Parts: sequence; C-alpha cells; structure tokens
Amino acid sequence: MGRKRFRVAVLGATGMVGQWLVHLLDRHPWFQVVALTGSDRSVGRPYGEACRWLLSAPMPPWAASMIVQPTEPGFEADLVLSALPSEIAREVEPRFAAAGYLVASNASAYRMASDVPLVMPDVNPDHLDLLSRQREIRGWSGALLTNPNCTTTAVVLPLKALMPYGVRRAHLVSLQALSGAGYPGVPALEIVDNILPYIAGEEEKLEREPRKLLGRLANGAVREADLALSAQTNRVPTLDGHLVCLSVELAERISPEAAMRAMAAYRPPEEVADLPSAVPQPIVVRTEPDRPQPRLDRMAGGGMSVVVGRVQPCPVFTLKFVALTHNTIRGAAGAALFNAEAALRWAGRV
Amino acid sequence: MGRKRFRVAVLGATGMVGQWLVHLLDRHPWFQVVALTGSDRSVGRPYGEACRWLLSAPMPPWAASMIVQPTEPGFEADLVLSALPSEIAREVEPRFAAAGYLVASNASAYRMASDVPLVMPDVNPDHLDLLSRQREIRGWSGALLTNPNCTTTAVVLPLKALMPYGVRRAHLVSLQALSGAGYPGVPALEIVDNILPYIAGEEEKLEREPRKLLGRLANGAVREADLALSAQTNRVPTLDGHLVCLSVELAERISPEAAMRAMAAYRPPEEVADLPSAVPQPIVVRTEPDRPQPRLDRMAGGGMSVVVGRVQPCPVFTLKFVALTHNTIRGAAGAALFNAEAALRWAGRV
Amino acid sequence: MGRKRFRVAVLGATGMVGQWLVHLLDRHPWFQVVALTGSDRSVGRPYGEACRWLLSAPMPPWAASMIVQPTEPGFEADLVLSALPSEIAREVEPRFAAAGYLVASNASAYRMASDVPLVMPDVNPDHLDLLSRQREIRGWSGALLTNPNCTTTAVVLPLKALMPYGVRRAHLVSLQALSGAGYPGVPALEIVDNILPYIAGEEEKLEREPRKLLGRLANGAVREADLALSAQTNRVPTLDGHLVCLSVELAERISPEAAMRAMAAYRPPEEVADLPSAVPQPIVVRTEPDRPQPRLDRMAGGGMSVVVGRVQPCPVFTLKFVALTHNTIRGAAGAALFNAEAALRWAGRV
Amino acid sequence: MGRKRFRVAVLGATGMVGQWLVHLLDRHPWFQVVALTGSDRSVGRPYGEACRWLLSAPMPPWAASMIVQPTEPGFEADLVLSALPSEIAREVEPRFAAAGYLVASNASAYRMASDVPLVMPDVNPDHLDLLSRQREIRGWSGALLTNPNCTTTAVVLPLKALMPYGVRRAHLVSLQALSGAGYPGVPALEIVDNILPYIAGEEEKLEREPRKLLGRLANGAVREADLALSAQTNRVPTLDGHLVCLSVELAERISPEAAMRAMAAYRPPEEVADLPSAVPQPIVVRTEPDRPQPRLDRMAGGGMSVVVGRVQPCPVFTLKFVALTHNTIRGAAGAALFNAEAALRWAGRV
Repeated sequence: MGRKRFRVAVLGATGMVGQWLVHLLDRHPWFQVVALTGSDRSVGRPYGEACRWLLSAPMPPWAASMIVQPTEPGFEADLVLSALPSEIAREVEPRFAAAGYLVASNASAYRMASDVPLVMPDVNPDHLDLLSRQREIRGWSGALLTNPNCTTTAVVLPLKALMPYGVRRAHLVSLQALSGAGYPGVPALEIVDNILPYIAGEEEKLEREPRKLLGRLANGAVREADLALSAQTNRVPTLDGHLVCLSVELAERISPEAAMRAMAAYRPPEEVADLPSAVPQPIVVRTEPDRPQPRLDRMAGGGMSVVVGRVQPCPVFTLKFVALTHNTIRGAAGAALFNAEAALRWAGRV
Repeated sequence: MGRKRFRVAVLGATGMVGQWLVHLLDRHPWFQVVALTGSDRSVGRPYGEACRWLLSAPMPPWAASMIVQPTEPGFEADLVLSALPSEIAREVEPRFAAAGYLVASNASAYRMASDVPLVMPDVNPDHLDLLSRQREIRGWSGALLTNPNCTTTAVVLPLKALMPYGVRRAHLVSLQALSGAGYPGVPALEIVDNILPYIAGEEEKLEREPRKLLGRLANGAVREADLALSAQTNRVPTLDGHLVCLSVELAERISPEAAMRAMAAYRPPEEVADLPSAVPQPIVVRTEPDRPQPRLDRMAGGGMSVVVGRVQPCPVFTLKFVALTHNTIRGAAGAALFNAEAALRWAGRV
Repeated sequence: MGRKRFRVAVLGATGMVGQWLVHLLDRHPWFQVVALTGSDRSVGRPYGEACRWLLSAPMPPWAASMIVQPTEPGFEADLVLSALPSEIAREVEPRFAAAGYLVASNASAYRMASDVPLVMPDVNPDHLDLLSRQREIRGWSGALLTNPNCTTTAVVLPLKALMPYGVRRAHLVSLQALSGAGYPGVPALEIVDNILPYIAGEEEKLEREPRKLLGRLANGAVREADLALSAQTNRVPTLDGHLVCLSVELAERISPEAAMRAMAAYRPPEEVADLPSAVPQPIVVRTEPDRPQPRLDRMAGGGMSVVVGRVQPCPVFTLKFVALTHNTIRGAAGAALFNAEAALRWAGRV
Repeated sequence: MGRKRFRVAVLGATGMVGQWLVHLLDRHPWFQVVALTGSDRSVGRPYGEACRWLLSAPMPPWAASMIVQPTEPGFEADLVLSALPSEIAREVEPRFAAAGYLVASNASAYRMASDVPLVMPDVNPDHLDLLSRQREIRGWSGALLTNPNCTTTAVVLPLKALMPYGVRRAHLVSLQALSGAGYPGVPALEIVDNILPYIAGEEEKLEREPRKLLGRLANGAVREADLALSAQTNRVPTLDGHLVCLSVELAERISPEAAMRAMAAYRPPEEVADLPSAVPQPIVVRTEPDRPQPRLDRMAGGGMSVVVGRVQPCPVFTLKFVALTHNTIRGAAGAALFNAEAALRWAGRV
C-alpha cells in the first residue's frame, strides 16, 4: 500500500482535538493533510499563527505554514476528519456528507442518529453497514460516521470483553482530565485544590452511548444493548487521561482472574486488525494494586489501549475495576482516525 | 457549665490529626489541654519544636511551649483523645482505658471490636451504651470509644437520613484529599498531573464501618445493618475534603426532591444537640449543578457538616448523589472531640 | 465613631477584586454598601445570580439580593470603590470624580497620572495632598486616588523600611498567584505541571510604581525616588499570595539582622494607624529558613501584612530576601479600602 | 564505531537520577549496562522489584531482571556512572577511582575539589586535562569527574555564550521542579497551592559552581572566573524542568538581539560535537513573549538543550532573560553520560 495516498481535511483544526489530529496525522502512513479549517477568526491566517498550540510535541512545520480555510465544502479531499464543536457540527457535517466527502466525526451531534454509525473499529466494525442505509435515507454521495464520547471509550472496551458473561448493568464514576474540556476550558482558579463534580451533558452520554456501541445491527438499524448504566462524572486536575471506576453486574458470576484473562485476551476483529491505528492489545490489564494511573499509563499502546486494573469481586454487583483511556487519543483524535481507516476498509478502498 | 473544666491529653499530637486536635481544642469551651504525647523522637522537646506544623492557622502559643510526653499513662487527665497510628493504638489504648482514662480514639484498631462503640453522636449516640458492656467484659475503670474512618463520615450521614426509606445497597467511589494520608504522606511527584486509584485498607473500612454505625444495639451487642456496600477509593490532589459519589438502592422509590428534603431536615438527636461540636444541620444540601466542591464547601458547619449535592434519579439503583466531608475535622479530629463530649454526656458528667 | 455611616458603591463588583471588596465590606465598621455595579450582562439581575462567586467564604446575604446597577453616576453614595478593568476605568472613573464622588480605585489607568495620588496609607499618606492639586487642575467636586499593582505592595513596604539606609537599586523576581489574573484568568491546561514566565504589562508596573510611592511630594508634584528597579514576573499555580525574591543595593552596608530589625519595627504613620484596615505590624519578619510560604503566610495581619523572610547577605548587592503579599487583600481590595479610609481622614471626615 | 562496546555500571540506580540513567542508557549507542547498584534494602533483588519506577516511559526489560548489587568495586566495567547521594559518594567514589574505574559522577561531593574536573563537555571540555593532575596527586589508576548541579546547567550555557562580552555579575532566581528533590522528595501537602522559597544547599552551589565551570585551566589548576553571582532558589509544583530568571551585567552594553544571536549561535567545541549526547544547538532561543515554559520546552534537544527566552534590556544591569533546563536530563543523568563520553574521547578511546 502506497504511503500518504488519501487527501485529508481537518475541520476545526485549531482546537484541542484538532491539534491532536494534526499531530497524529504527521506520522500517519496513509493520510496527507490538504486542508485545515477554522472559525472566522482564524480563516486566511497561517495555522502556525492562528492556533495556540498546546501539545508538548512541536507543531509539524507543514501545518504551521498552511492557511486556515473556512469550514465549508470546496477543497479536494478524500476524507474529512471533524473536530468541530457539536452545535457547529450539527449544521455543517451533513453539508460535507451531501457534497460527497467521507466524514469521520468526533462531535456528539449525530452519534445517536439512527442512520449514523457510532463506531469503535475494534468493538463494532459491523455497524459500518449502517452507511448503506444512511445513503438510501439521506441520498448523500458521501457519508458520516462518528466515534463516541471520550469517557465512553474507557467503558466500552472492557464491557465488550465481558459481554460473553452477560453484562446486565454497571455503575460508572469518572475522574476526567482537563484536556477533555478543550481550550481554554477549566479556569485554574476552579481546579487547584479542588474537584468539580459536574461536566455538562457528560453523564447522559455515558449512560447512553455504550448501549448503541454494544448493540446489534439488524435490518438496517442498531438495537441498543439491554444494559442499564448509571454515571457520575468529575473533573480533576490531570492533563490527559480519563479514569473510570466501574462496578459491573454479570449474568454469570466469574472470578476477577477470569475477567482479567478475558480482557487481556480481547483482540480486534480480523477485518480491522491491520489498520494503522489498530493496536494488538486494545485492553492492557495491570495487576499491581495501584495501577492504572493517568500519568504513567495513558500512553499505553500509543494512547490507543485502554488500561484496566484493580479487578476485584464487588460486594454489590459481580466485579469492580478501574479503566483508563487517553481521552484525546483513543477518546477523540485517534478514534476519529481509526474510524476513517475502518470506513475506507469497509468501502473497499484499502 | 463552667469553661475548660475537663483536663484533656492528646496522644500522637505531632501528626496531622493531632495538630487538628490541638487547633480545635484551642477554641473548645470545655476542654483544657494538659498533655501532648509523641514518639521517642519528640519526647522531651517543646511541641513547637518537635512538631512540623502544617495548618494555615498558627500553632496556639500554649501548645508551642508544652513539653512532649511519652505515650504512657501517668499524667492527670479526665479525657484522652487519641490520634495514634493504628498499630500503636492497638497496643496502647487498652492500657489507658485500663488505667481509668476515658479514651476517644480516631484510630481504626478497635473500631470493629464487638464491645467498643463506633460512634457518630448525631447518628448513633445510643451505641454508647456498649460502654457498660465493655466495662463488664474488660474490667476497665476507664473506657474506649472510636469514631469512624474519615470517608465513612461522608457516607453514613446521608444514609442515616435515608434509612426510613429502606437503604438496601450502595456503590461508593471516593476522591480523597492528601491530608487523609497524614504527613509526609503522598509524594508530590506521584500526584501532580495524576490520580492514585488505591488507598491501602480504605475500601474494606468503607464497606464495613457504615454497617456497624447504622446497626442496632440490642442485648449488649451491635447487630450490623443489613446493607451491601461496594467501595472504590482514589487519592486526588486536593488538600482537604473527601468527595464521595454514591448510588443508593432504596426499598421505597422516592424522588430526588424527597431525598433532599429528608437529608436537609435531618437533625441531631436531642441528647447530643447542645454539645459544643454538634451542628444544627449535619447535612447541608446544595441544589446548584456543580456543588459540593471540596475547596468551596469543606468548611460548612465549621467543617462538621456533610455537604450533599447532585441528587438525581439513578438509572440502576434509586438515587445517585455526591457527598463531601472535611476529612480532618468531621472525619477525624472533630469526630473524636464530638465523641468525647458525647461520652461525658452519657456518663452524666455534663 | 458611629458604625456603617458612609454609603459605599463598588464598581465592577462581579469580578475577582469586586468579590473580595464585597467580602471585606461585610465586616467593615464604617462602610455600608448601597450599590454594586457590573457590565451589561449583569445589570438588572440580583448580584447572587449575576456573579460567579469564587471565594471560600460564602457570599453575604445582603449582597446576594442587591440588583446590579450600570457603572454610571446616579446613585447616592459617599464613596466609590473601583474594581474596574483598566480600560473601562480610564473612561468611567473621571466621570464619577467629576460628579462629586470620592473614588478609591484599584485600576492601573491613572496610577501614574501626575495629579492622582498613588498611595499605600502606611507608606506615603502625605501624597494624599495631591488631591488638592487635582481639584485645582481638573475642577472635580469629587476626587480620585489609586492603590498600586498587587505585586508592588510586596516590594514597597520592605523598601520603605530600608529607605533610611539608602536604597539604590533592586532586582525583583515574582512568583504570582492565579487570582491575580482575575476570572476566568489562566486556563488550568496552561499551568498544571508548568510555569508561565510572562504576565502582560506587569514588569513595567513593578519597575515604575515603587518609584512614585517612595517619592517625595513637593510643590504639588511627586518627584519619583531615585531608584533603579529590574523586574521579572512569573505565574505559578498558587491560588492567592504573590511571592517576590528581591536583591537590594543599599548605600549603607547593613547586616541581615539590622535589616530584619528595621522591617519588623516599621510602623504605620500615626495619622493612619487607627484606621480600620491598618495593621500594627505592616511587615512581619520570619526567621525560619523556609518561610514565607504563600499558603501558610498569606493571611498574616488578616491579609494586610507583608511577610518577609530569608534575609541574607547578597554577594552582588547588599541584601537578598523574599517578600509575600496577599495579592487580593493587601494587593487589591484591602488596599482600596484602606485608601478610602485614609482619604476620609485626610478630608477631615473621620 | 561499534555499538555498545563499553561496559557501564550505574551506582545508586534505584533513585530518581539512577532511573533516568537506566532510561537513557537503554538507547545509548556505545554503552552496555553490566551492573546496577543500590542500598542494602535493594541488594540481591531484581531491579524491577527493588525500584519504584517513576518515569512515564516503561522500565527497560533488561533492567527489570538485573539483580541489584552492592555499591562496591568488584564487577567488570569500563565506566561507572554515579547517581549516589553526596554523603555516600564522598566515601565510595574514590574507592572506585582507586580501583581503576572511570567514574562520571552526578554527586556534589567532589565538584569543587581542586583536582576533580567539573565539566559540561560543550562548555569546558579542556578542563578534562585536570585528570592528568588528578592521577599524579591521587595515584589512582582510574579517574573521577563530575557534572554540575542541575540548576547550574541553566545558568552556565547562556553565560558561556555571553563571555565574549565580559560577564561581570548576575542575579539568579530559580523556580525548580519536584524531580530535583528525588523520591519521595517533597510531600504533596507542602506544595499544592504553595511555593517553598528554600532548597537546602542549593543557593551556595549556584553561586559557586558556574565560577569553576567558566574558569580557566592553567598549570594544573582551575582559576575560577571573576564573576559575582547571587542566587535565590524556589521549589514549585512542576514535575521536570528548572526555570531560572537571570539579570546579567556585561562589560560591553549589547542589545537583546545581539545576545540572542550569540546564544543561538553557540556551538559545542569541535572535539565533543560528535559525541552521542552532544546537541548541535546547546542553547535554543525563543522569541515568543511567554516562553520558555517547563512543560512545553523541557524536552528541547531531547532534554539536552537549554531554552532561553524573554531576553530584554535590564534597567539595573545589562540584560535580563529566562533560561530553562531539563533538570534530570541536561541537569543530571544526561550530564553524567555526556561527561563519560567526553572522558573516553579525552582518553583517546573513542
């Protein structure tokens, strides 16, 4: 397969997730960035000036000199990666799909739409078939697919590995990093020596999205998994890495050891296992008593593995454990990239 | 009632909880400090030198000049407040009780002993009657009573207020402050840009202690409440204030509004309501979406009120909410003081 | 002197400094708040709703229910305390002074104007005489006086105490707290595990303002002190308390001990010593090797004392030492209040 | 040049600097680790168990399985890298040098000894000639050389580049990271919402070491540079990266632009420029107003470049600017490695 053969545009490239996309695309074997879009404030300026770069890794030079374009169809591209805020995504993404682009979106606007696939390629790649239905219904020459909320990714991979034992319900309490709120995001005055026990809209997403991701596609529709979830979400002063404490009720009463084996043995489905963003071990299981920790473990699998630890019997449900996801890689930019790769595979183009 | 009429000793006075005891005793209307004890390293030195003072409030001058004594019976005192580490408390506290002192301990060593009251005076003051049984069994001329683990206090007050609705089981996830680990405690290198998902021994205490506190005393024994608890505990970089996310299953399906009313209306039992450490409102309920927050709310009721917020229906159990306790006041030093007052009342001395 | 006999308005009451003013005024013996003003977004709403309250101390109930007014003359008040942003202050404050109000401003807009007193009452109360000149020049029936930049206060008090030894020049490096940037201020993403070595406009103020404060008023003008200052300013992740490292060249080579004595012995001039905001010891000197520390020492003198420590011989200049100021009390809200009191004294009204 | 042809031992391998050495050696082209030593507590255990690994990068597998040895001569090695605490280094390092090992030490014990080179290879590689004198005096078959204190590295490189303009004196104020204190180091309770204005022994080192590094070797002795330095050191809650604010007096009054050119143009002397740890640009100059920042800039040049910014005219001296060093790479582990390479070059072995 030739290198850099697909032309890619990043929508909303100046924000936090946009910057991570630019960073990850710098090393991507297939994708060549041809356009970066931004808001009115940024359009017409070089990306290097328009963007307040927040990553420790330096901005790629090719990006610094690109002129930011308006977020409108018009450029030549095979793929569009959207890091737009949800309210803008709601209006703009359908226009791109209608204009023939394949849109892999990180925005929440269309995640729960019945004809839009909500996909993690190593969890439910078969849901990509919804795109056929989408084309029929919407008449788009392009297509739109979405990845889940960042915190959802920490929850779905372990639950997927436990599905054979009958996942019935779960309690989820998250400790979420600052980067999840974008930039400028949380004022330092609010979070030094403090915790914020509230993130707008987050609990609703966390209680709903896993049901669709773990659901079954049949007759052109996803039937959500029969799974009750209760979520409480907190903002804590870490930079990257969302930690989730889970208690899970299973139909079958399995031991922590069996659960650890099932999670560590979980592998991506064959049809996506060779994609550039796939990791051989989507779930890394740690056995030390004090892991995972955000700073030490968030980069497992290049930020694409969820790290699980503290798997114990739960006195109320079956098991309790802790899961960590790199919220801006597996939970956002890397997720959108992985979806774009999977969609190209589904379309038979790779 | 005369001021400062009881002579008090603080065991383990140089540690974090010991310092809070010294601070709170400075303003206490009944108690006069007559002895501060410490480890070999400190004995014989003025407290002001032996102790690395960590509170923002300055050390009281009377304390600075007191000579630290060994942790052995021998001084004249009516009361002993113990801030000893558990392994030392296990050996030393019975010697004090045998020597005739009334010992109010913050240590975990004897909390679950069948003849030792585990008490929060505004929750289960009737458990103090165990002291009669204790005297029979142990033959002590003094007595020993204990307060719960710091995090337990955030859980027990709300559950107590909800007991009329039939509390069946609960999930508890804590975000605990640094001061809970004492001094030196957590190295900064481990907690900046990080979370530690593990606190040794903490989950076990949190799953067990509330059952005793909410249990029923009959025939000289506490029968633990029939209540299943599952706990996951995390260390976060706040200075003071433990936050707990709870999901609670009740026998009766009540609304969040009813639960908030029940918690806000909870009052200390009459026999303890006029004690110096009692607060008229043990549970403060906040209705803003983003409260309680440790830094803003930990000093509610002078640090003796638990603050509850985000009371919502739970998709899995009945209710979910967040509770905050000041871990070194309501959860430790203030708890021991309150217990000492309640024990004096029980003994008919006040 | 009767209590609460002056009617006070706070301009820009919803911001960080405005909130501290409301907090300090709650306990002020002379001042009764009659108006709180805010921006268009806030006007007409109760202060309790319009203001995102950031202090740990709760909002005073009387403030919560006051309706926010536009920042325009029109209300009846004896005094106006201005916490306005500089660009707005520049336009609005003269209108208030012209309309007859006595304006004590925390804004930087007019600090260096030749007919506007820049005052710390325990440093240069005689500069208030500039108000006579101001009235002649401007024709205002009211008056305008200002307090210095927050960091300046940490520098000026120690230098004032050392003036008898001939202060020639000084290097100043600050480590400034988050609250100095107001709200929302510094994004947490920029300051966790980080330092910002830049604060816009701050170095210029710090190199200039002390010269005016330590200058001599003669013939209706302040002649700046002949004193060279070099400043470097940094933002660090503390909540309150600006720390400054100083190296000072004196004409007379004195010992650290002599300097400590001079600073500890510094007293407010008699004409202001009994004002409510005056502290008997404007400079507190600590002799421990590791003090002052922002969290432990910022509340010295109720936040109105500057704390000095680590006084040592300087291998390059004469002395080096560290000074700490509570930036939002001594450095802003408390400074404006103290100025208002001093101006009333100057006007013979108290 | 063959890969991995020198056998290396790391003394004090379980500490913070020892861990960084292990990490950097994993990628080193010349050096093969043959021994890791530790204290009695660690000896005989696999490094992976004995060491509480603190880096985000995982421990190299070869290190995890090595058995920790006592810190005594006895193993076969060409080189010894010492990360020992100073008091142990004082006793042990001479024994290694006497036993024939080439010892590159990070400890402060012998830095100022007249026959021990204190070296940064891209600053004063000629000082290695002191090793001949050392051999004469001490009669060692091996040799001992040292690298400076971590903070010193941030100061010496810029001053070296400015030496042609006549550096006369300088003020230095540091904001130092937590990792500089080793592990466990600073308790989180002391540094959250706080600054510590004191680091034991640090100011003395910072005022002395640059004089030796910038001195002239003649007749078998280093004559210290005639340079007055005044230092104030602070601990701040960053993980890695020491920031220093400097004001420098030069004999020649040059512009900030000229200084920036001189620093950016500084190159390592030819005899060390091709060593594995050499960087082409030892000083990276940033022109943005708010750089360098520890988190964004500490990894410049793989952690071996000092980053300078905010170069401005100084109202008191000639120039003021800010310099950043990665304290555990350029300031410790990388410095010792670079010295070992330079010593091998000096000895004609590479």
